[in-house]
Amino acid sequence: MNTINVVQKLSTFSDHWHPRIIGELNGQAVKIAKLKGEFIWHAHKDEDELFYILKGTLKMEFRDGIKEISEGEMLIVPKGVEHRPIADEEVHVMLFEPLETKHTGELEHELTKKNLERI
Amino acid sequence: MNTINVVQKLSTFSDHWHPRIIGELNGQAVKIAKLKGEFIWHAHKDEDELFYILKGTLKMEFRDGIKEISEGEMLIVPKGVEHRPIADEEVHVMLFEPLETKHTGELEHELTKKNLERI
Repeated sequence: MNTINVVQKLSTFSDHWHPRIIGELNGQAVKIAKLKGEFIWHAHKDEDELFYILKGTLKMEFRDGIKEISEGEMLIVPKGVEHRPIADEEVHVMLFEPLETKHTGELEHELTKKNLERI
Repeated sequence: MNTINVVQKLSTFSDHWHPRIIGELNGQAVKIAKLKGEFIWHAHKDEDELFYILKGTLKMEFRDGIKEISEGEMLIVPKGVEHRPIADEEVHVMLFEPLETKHTGELEHELTKKNLERI
């Protein structure tokens, strides 16, 4: 059982759209990622997904509009809701979701990362 | 589905050792609390508990020693592990844990808060 320094963990990688796992509890994962540019439309059939913004401003596009999430804010995207994250400038984000959640949801895509590293 | 501003939510209350629920997902709760002073020894039989420090430094006492968790750090206390939070100065904390988790664990105590408000 060790303390986990989120900023230090973020400093260990620089690639975008590639979440790392920094904690696990109750079948859920705490992940961090750096985002820049536009991601793909996707949904998670069975899993709600929490985005907590550590740095920057994330735009979350939905089929009926866009929500901006700024540093210190969070957004919970309910299961089944299609969404597309967009980061005009680099965004650092913490995610809280079930361990098995894939970041591209039901979609198998060249961006899909499997077997996420635990850092 | 609304963005949740954690600092704004924290500004809506000032009492200590009284968690509020600010989000729910996948049967888990996101809670925030202000801590000051010493809490009671307790454990959660079936639930791991995540502490993420938003402000200040929390000391977490275990039967075999103390860990300090500073702003931007998190600690996951595994189920069954006795712990006692101590905040020499006021600490603001975000908690991730199952919805049903009581902050005094298995212990029924005068400090136990039930039916936590959703704010």
